[in-house]
Amino acid sequence: MCEICGCGDSRLVSINVQRSLLSENDRQAAHLREHFISDGVLALNIMGSPGAGKTALLEATARVLAGRLRLAAVSADLATALDAERLERAGVFSAPITTGSACHLDASLVHHALHDARLSRAVSSADVFFIENVGNLVCPAIYDLGQSANVVVLSVTEGVDKPLKYPVIFHKADLVVITKIDLLPHLPGVSLATLRENVARVMPKLQVIELSALTGAGVPNFVEWLDERRQAAR
Amino acid sequence: MCEICGCGDSRLVSINVQRSLLSENDRQAAHLREHFISDGVLALNIMGSPGAGKTALLEATARVLAGRLRLAAVSADLATALDAERLERAGVFSAPITTGSACHLDASLVHHALHDARLSRAVSSADVFFIENVGNLVCPAIYDLGQSANVVVLSVTEGVDKPLKYPVIFHKADLVVITKIDLLPHLPGVSLATLRENVARVMPKLQVIELSALTGAGVPNFVEWLDERRQAAR
Repeated sequence: MCEICGCGDSRLVSINVQRSLLSENDRQAAHLREHFISDGVLALNIMGSPGAGKTALLEATARVLAGRLRLAAVSADLATALDAERLERAGVFSAPITTGSACHLDASLVHHALHDARLSRAVSSADVFFIENVGNLVCPAIYDLGQSANVVVLSVTEGVDKPLKYPVIFHKADLVVITKIDLLPHLPGVSLATLRENVARVMPKLQVIELSALTGAGVPNFVEWLDERRQAAR
Repeated sequence: MCEICGCGDSRLVSINVQRSLLSENDRQAAHLREHFISDGVLALNIMGSPGAGKTALLEATARVLAGRLRLAAVSADLATALDAERLERAGVFSAPITTGSACHLDASLVHHALHDARLSRAVSSADVFFIENVGNLVCPAIYDLGQSANVVVLSVTEGVDKPLKYPVIFHKADLVVITKIDLLPHLPGVSLATLRENVARVMPKLQVIELSALTGAGVPNFVEWLDERRQAAR
């Protein structure tokens, strides 16, 4: 496996190079994790396909929390600060990470973003820090970012077979959030029961929340999960 | 840029290693291209996010063509042969490429698949060869597979901002197929006009087809584009 991008291509780079790159990432991620833990911040790595609804989930969460928890975020995309701007408008202290053509975040990109003093202060004093990864159901799974938990966001519009076809990211998921359930009546080929079964086949410890960021249905369950994770971290 | 996976991370691998890997890929892609051209096969690299509707597009195309053109395909996913099985049922001679954890196809993976004598014969005698890439809006753009054209499939459910946030793949697109337009009435935040404008901002030579594989609306326009490309290649 090419652990540079999680692309599985061992022909491309020597095993030794791969190992040293990942071990450098792990060193930086451990450093980030120490900070998050000592600051009492729940750091979450939010992953999923482009358009799965990662930003919409965070917006809806901020609406339900209505200021009860202090939220901070970084939002990664190849280009634009659009997601960070949306989160700012929703009341989440946010900064963009534009990756150029990089298909995933790594610990050094997060670390570099935290060199910004305003973001760093906001994260240190936050209850939850959302690290919204690049939209990609493959590569982000490989890189530790110092997070406390991995959240995979999967929309019903992507179809029921995605967990089976892209199992790697689900193997590492602590929570799968199934989004856009308001669209189910208009998706003749999509059964929520089958989607759940397919997630169960590839997720080591099944934990699934189904919701619609548009209608707000199910979003309180995600907020409850956040509270439980915060309690467990104490 | 890390051209190993198109991940843009020049810190990771030396420029020389990147160049030699890409140049080896280009060599193999040129070899594939020679075969496709001499066999009179229109080879297309079909790219897009997981669940954008790549397989559904090819199924719907096969239905409209109803045997008029000979179709062959390879379908890439990290795991399972589900897509290739769907295409077989739609009358397309198909083979899966399971990439393990690789986030994109490269020329050697396509070349290796074509070592299968039955697939090789089917492709040589086909009118159109669909190379359905791994679901990923970032990395597949980097690797030449010997194709005649790049088709990017983008579903309206992914939102209007994806071309701006993931411009790299659109820079290389010869055609953008906007899918799932039957869902537009249920997507309050999605304007087809805005999506078109955003594609126009990042695509060098604008060519967009809008369709629904579910209802069949617009699919004949894709078939017409296939015919035009075949004519142009003669």
